[in-house]
Amino acid sequence: MRIAIDAMGGDNAPQAIVEGINLAKKNYPELEFLLFGKENEIKKYLTDEKNVTIIHTDEKINSDDEPVKSIRQKKQASMVLAAHAVKNKEADALFSAGNTGALLAAGLFVVGRIKKVERPGLMTTMPVFTGEAGAGFDFIDMGANADNKPEHLLTYGILGSFYAKKVRSIENPRVGLLNNGTEATKGSELTKAAYELLEKEESINFIGNVEARDLFNGVADVVVTDGFTGNAVLKSVEGTAMSLMTILKSSIMDSGLKGKMGALMLKDSLKGMKSTLDYSSHGGAVLFGVKAPVVKTHGSTGPEAVSHTMGQIKTMLETNLVEELQTFFDNKEA
Amino acid sequence: MRIAIDAMGGDNAPQAIVEGINLAKKNYPELEFLLFGKENEIKKYLTDEKNVTIIHTDEKINSDDEPVKSIRQKKQASMVLAAHAVKNKEADALFSAGNTGALLAAGLFVVGRIKKVERPGLMTTMPVFTGEAGAGFDFIDMGANADNKPEHLLTYGILGSFYAKKVRSIENPRVGLLNNGTEATKGSELTKAAYELLEKEESINFIGNVEARDLFNGVADVVVTDGFTGNAVLKSVEGTAMSLMTILKSSIMDSGLKGKMGALMLKDSLKGMKSTLDYSSHGGAVLFGVKAPVVKTHGSTGPEAVSHTMGQIKTMLETNLVEELQTFFDNKEA
Repeated sequence: MRIAIDAMGGDNAPQAIVEGINLAKKNYPELEFLLFGKENEIKKYLTDEKNVTIIHTDEKINSDDEPVKSIRQKKQASMVLAAHAVKNKEADALFSAGNTGALLAAGLFVVGRIKKVERPGLMTTMPVFTGEAGAGFDFIDMGANADNKPEHLLTYGILGSFYAKKVRSIENPRVGLLNNGTEATKGSELTKAAYELLEKEESINFIGNVEARDLFNGVADVVVTDGFTGNAVLKSVEGTAMSLMTILKSSIMDSGLKGKMGALMLKDSLKGMKSTLDYSSHGGAVLFGVKAPVVKTHGSTGPEAVSHTMGQIKTMLETNLVEELQTFFDNKEA
Repeated sequence: MRIAIDAMGGDNAPQAIVEGINLAKKNYPELEFLLFGKENEIKKYLTDEKNVTIIHTDEKINSDDEPVKSIRQKKQASMVLAAHAVKNKEADALFSAGNTGALLAAGLFVVGRIKKVERPGLMTTMPVFTGEAGAGFDFIDMGANADNKPEHLLTYGILGSFYAKKVRSIENPRVGLLNNGTEATKGSELTKAAYELLEKEESINFIGNVEARDLFNGVADVVVTDGFTGNAVLKSVEGTAMSLMTILKSSIMDSGLKGKMGALMLKDSLKGMKSTLDYSSHGGAVLFGVKAPVVKTHGSTGPEAVSHTMGQIKTMLETNLVEELQTFFDNKEA
């Protein structure tokens, strides 16, 4: 199992990425890594070269580069070379903490779509607050697409269900459709049409509509939405959580000694809450529906999360997730 | 200024509604109220009948009634009679804490749309966490519509801007378009087309795209979106805030004595935060674009919020908000 790593992508690259690979080498000795980027900088942080091949390149894609253009023009960029390694079967999966749009473009145009998956979606496992350890739901599409058709949402139901079964070991994952009400008759033109398709699909356990308000109550194992709404929901959750944290901080600053002491104690719980909310603890976001695992983490991702994400990719490879998806779609009638 | 009140709508009706009117009679002695509902029940809670007319009816719309059907079939329901009072110019505005869908239907089909406003939107003033007292943004459409066209979003920009100027006394309100990125080129087909229309509209101060993540930072005074996305954002914010509150509570239960003491002190701040988040503190949600103020609060609204909402309606009436909107749209080229 060889993973192509864009060592230059992310706010703290290559240090955070390489240190994450150092950790992953210990945690998953069966993995091999192809590190794309500046050799001397990578070597500065790499503990040893066991299971590692460095492919030197000076070029990289910046966070403010225009995604599709940069993929086409910066042919020697670390991310682009890593994507080509996957395309050419020199590696089995692609990882980057860099420019999200560029990684999506690299996934779509270099790694390539699975047949019959018209619009791959970005998926992540979001936490739920039911108190159950590791509980969460797979949220797809988080924003790879700005416009989706009903058929795409059906595909996301199938993709999410595969992931929940294979990677999260959920036997019969409950697939919900994000909608503006729980009744079957509710929705926009898009969600009403998607509802009908999801309901007819025999390979999944469709449980009907779910509302954004109930997402964190564990109402479903997979939640399907269009990329525009998914993006808005994700950013609303982030914005609300960040605002509440800020208010809590200022409450602590304004409170007396007793309050400060108590706040200090609570602060640990609240940090725990913050890390629960941080969906990167469940691994990276997967561009799902392309011919190999393409996984992305936050630009600010640290070594622990990079290593954790390598474990996630390992599970995706071990369970033959992508191959089985390809077989499924090959056999599916259009 | 006469306000038609659906005295039977809401979880604690008619008690909470009538007690709210008792308060409003003190706070706004220039207002008159038409109370629609069961006379003997209303009289049980009403302090006195100054400025109040009771119109007795036994029928009411329940929270689980099918909206459009109930408006058409329950012709003697308190909400329907109240809406007809507005239509027949016996009252200047309509208020209910009852079935939201039914109130939207009553607003659209009984009170009626302003000419050239194809799809009235549901608008509320959401709080921001900038520390500035009373700061907020007008969010429209929160979910009156499941599908919107670009032209509707332009109309919402105009409506929101009028409201921010007239009711919130903001001189040159900044109108933002909720989108999946801040760059002008970002968006779905809908938001890209809406962007062009909003940019061309000379009557408003369009500042471009805003992201859901930044809503609570005071990034705009008016935020325009389609009803499906607005509904999803609103419910995501509610869900996240509720989940965090639940986690905080369980942290408090699990913490030691010191933690509990500190938590108790912080609890007040956090309650304050909760009430800041509670958008009903800014008044009710307005079905905007119909021929009179039609205002709705949560079903669980208490007397204080009912009275506060009467103040909001009073401002809308005093500033001739609806009349000026009608004039504006009459003079606007199609």
